[in-house]
Amino acid sequence: MVDRVYNFSAGPATLPIDVLEQASQDIKNFKETGIGLIEMSHRSKEFMAVAENTESLLRELMEIPDNYKVLFLQGGASSQFFMIPMNLLGNGEKATYLNTGTWSKKAIKEAKLFGEIEVAYSSEEQTFNKVPEQGEYSISDDSEYLYFVSNNTIYGTQFPTFPDTDKLLISDMSSDILSRKIDVSKFGLIFAGAQKNMGPAGVTVVIIREDLMEKTPENTPTMLKYKTHADKDSMFNTPPCFAIYGVGEVLKWLKKQGGVEAMEKRNIAKAALLYDCIDSTDYYRGHAEVGSRSIMNISFNLPSADLEAQFIAEAAKIGLMGLKGHRSIGGCRASIYNAFPTEGVEKLVAFMKEFEAAN
Amino acid sequence: MVDRVYNFSAGPATLPIDVLEQASQDIKNFKETGIGLIEMSHRSKEFMAVAENTESLLRELMEIPDNYKVLFLQGGASSQFFMIPMNLLGNGEKATYLNTGTWSKKAIKEAKLFGEIEVAYSSEEQTFNKVPEQGEYSISDDSEYLYFVSNNTIYGTQFPTFPDTDKLLISDMSSDILSRKIDVSKFGLIFAGAQKNMGPAGVTVVIIREDLMEKTPENTPTMLKYKTHADKDSMFNTPPCFAIYGVGEVLKWLKKQGGVEAMEKRNIAKAALLYDCIDSTDYYRGHAEVGSRSIMNISFNLPSADLEAQFIAEAAKIGLMGLKGHRSIGGCRASIYNAFPTEGVEKLVAFMKEFEAAN
Repeated sequence: MVDRVYNFSAGPATLPIDVLEQASQDIKNFKETGIGLIEMSHRSKEFMAVAENTESLLRELMEIPDNYKVLFLQGGASSQFFMIPMNLLGNGEKATYLNTGTWSKKAIKEAKLFGEIEVAYSSEEQTFNKVPEQGEYSISDDSEYLYFVSNNTIYGTQFPTFPDTDKLLISDMSSDILSRKIDVSKFGLIFAGAQKNMGPAGVTVVIIREDLMEKTPENTPTMLKYKTHADKDSMFNTPPCFAIYGVGEVLKWLKKQGGVEAMEKRNIAKAALLYDCIDSTDYYRGHAEVGSRSIMNISFNLPSADLEAQFIAEAAKIGLMGLKGHRSIGGCRASIYNAFPTEGVEKLVAFMKEFEAAN
Repeated sequence: MVDRVYNFSAGPATLPIDVLEQASQDIKNFKETGIGLIEMSHRSKEFMAVAENTESLLRELMEIPDNYKVLFLQGGASSQFFMIPMNLLGNGEKATYLNTGTWSKKAIKEAKLFGEIEVAYSSEEQTFNKVPEQGEYSISDDSEYLYFVSNNTIYGTQFPTFPDTDKLLISDMSSDILSRKIDVSKFGLIFAGAQKNMGPAGVTVVIIREDLMEKTPENTPTMLKYKTHADKDSMFNTPPCFAIYGVGEVLKWLKKQGGVEAMEKRNIAKAALLYDCIDSTDYYRGHAEVGSRSIMNISFNLPSADLEAQFIAEAAKIGLMGLKGHRSIGGCRASIYNAFPTEGVEKLVAFMKEFEAAN
C-alpha cells in the first residue's frame, strides 16, 4: 500500500487511489495483451474501446443530449480561449464576457483578436471576490454568446446558479465539471481541462452543440476547427491516449461513487466543514463573498502573511500538502475536488483549530 | 515479469520495459512523496525537476546549441503543420516544401493558408516510394525556408542525407528523431511527436532557433506563438505532465544504451536484417526505392493481398503484432524504432522465411 498524503493541489490534483493502482498495472500490460497502454496504437481495438468508453461514461454521467459532440482535445483549456472565438466569431461578431478572474481575463484577451468583445461585468476592483448575481449586468441584443467561468480556481468563487438568459451560454468549467448536476442543454459549449476534476493533465474536454460547428470560417487551420475532431471522434490525429484513459478511469470511479448527484452532496458537505471553521472565528477570513463561495477551492487568509507561511509549513509536516494560495492573491487555498477525501478535510479543520489556539 | 509481445506498431510504439516499470511505480507514488506523478502540481519542485531534466537530457543527447529553445507542446505534430507557417510566414512570404508523403501533403495544405507555397518536388505519382536526391529540385531565391519530412512513416522512406542548401531547413522528424546523429545547427526548426521514438503520445517536441520566434505576427493567439512557450519553459499553462515525464524516462534509457550514436548503429543493423531478407527473394518486395529506404519503418508486400492478410494473422499468433501496413498503401509494415529489440526483428525474419517456404 502506498503511504498517501492529503494533496490540496489546485491542479493537477489528487486522484482516487483505485485509479492510480489500475493505471499502474495497465501502463505496462494492458488487459494481458503483452503491450502497455502507453505503447499501444491509438487505432487498436483495445484503445478504441477505451476512448469510446470514456466518451459514453461522460455522456451518461452528465446526461449530455445527442445533439452535442464530446471532444477530447490537446492544448489545455487555454487553447479554448482562442478556439471559441476563432470558430464562433468568424466574421467579427460581438460576444459578451463576464470577468470574474484570471482565466476569464485571459479568455477576453484572446477573444478580442477575433470579434467585438463586451465585458458586461467585472469584479476585478474587488480582487475577484465575487461573481455577479442575476441582473447585475446586461447583454447586448446583437451578442452571439455569453461567456463565463463557472468556478474560479484562484479566487475560490463559483456561480451558485447559471446566468438566466436566452443567449448561447459558453462556460469554462475546468475546475468544477462533474462536481454538481448541470443541465447541458442550456449551454452551447462547455469545456474543461482534465487535471482538476477528471484525470491527469494533457486532455481538454469540449462539449459542443453540433450546429455551432458550422460557423467556423473556411480558412481556419484544420486542427483548430471543432468539426475536424468531431468528424473523427477525436482521432483525426494521435490523441493524448494516456490522459483519455485516465479520464475514463476517473469516470468509472465516479459512477461507482453514485454519480454526479452523490458527488455534489459530498462536495457541499466537505466545503461546509471548511467554511464553518472559517466562519466560527475571526482568525481565518474567507476570500470570497459568502454568496459566491466555491465548493471546490476554498481561499482564505490568516491574520498575517507570516502566520500564513507558518501555517502552510506546519500543515505540510503532518501530510496536508499544497495549501499555498495562488501567487496572484497569496494566502492559503484548499482545493477539494471530487477525489479529495472527506477525512482530509476533517484533518485540515482539526489542524486549523489547533493552529489558531497555538498562534 | 510482464509477458511481452513484439509490438511493430508505427506509433504509439513499443517502449523500453524499464521505462514502463518505472512509470508504473511513479504514477502512484512519485519518489516517496505520497503523491502520484499524475496528480502532482506542475509547479511543484518535484515536477519542475522532471521537466528540466527532460529538456537537459534532450539537449545533451542531440547536442542542441544554446541558441535553440526546446519546447514541449500539445496538439500533436499535426499542429506544427499550421504553427510553423503561422509564425514564420506572417506577411504571406514564400516557402518551399518537398512532398514525400501523407504528412508533407497535410503540412502543405495548412501552409497555403498563410503564405505562397512552392512544392519543389513530389513523389506522389510513384506512391511516395522515394525521397529526392540533391539536385532533383530547385528552391526559389525568395523562399523563406525548405520544409521536408525526414522519415516517412507510412511509405518507409527516409532522407539518407539532408538537403544541402543555404535556406533555413525545417523538418518533421516525428518518426526518426534520436535514431541517428544530426547536426541541429543546420536547422531552423525541428519537431517531432513523442509517440514513436521518444515516449507516450501527448507531447510534441519543437526545437527552434531563437531568432525565428521574433517573426510571429502580433495578432497571433497567445497559445500559438512559440515565444509564449519559450519564455515560460513550456509552463505557460499546465503542460502534459505525464508525457513529458515519459520522454524523460526514455531519454534516460537512451543515454544508458550509449546515446544516439550507439542507437544509430543498432538501428542500421536491425533494418539490414529485414532488408537483407527482403532482397534475398522475389516473394517479398520492399515499397521504398533502395536509396530512400527507412531504418525505422520497413514497408513491404507479399505476392497477393490474401497472402498479406494471412501473413499478418499468423505473425500475430506467435506474438509479432502490428504488422499491418497503413490503410493508404496496404501491405505490411514493420516499425522498428529505437526501443524495438533486435530479437524481435530476428524473430520476424525467421517467420518471414518459414512463411515463404510454406506458402
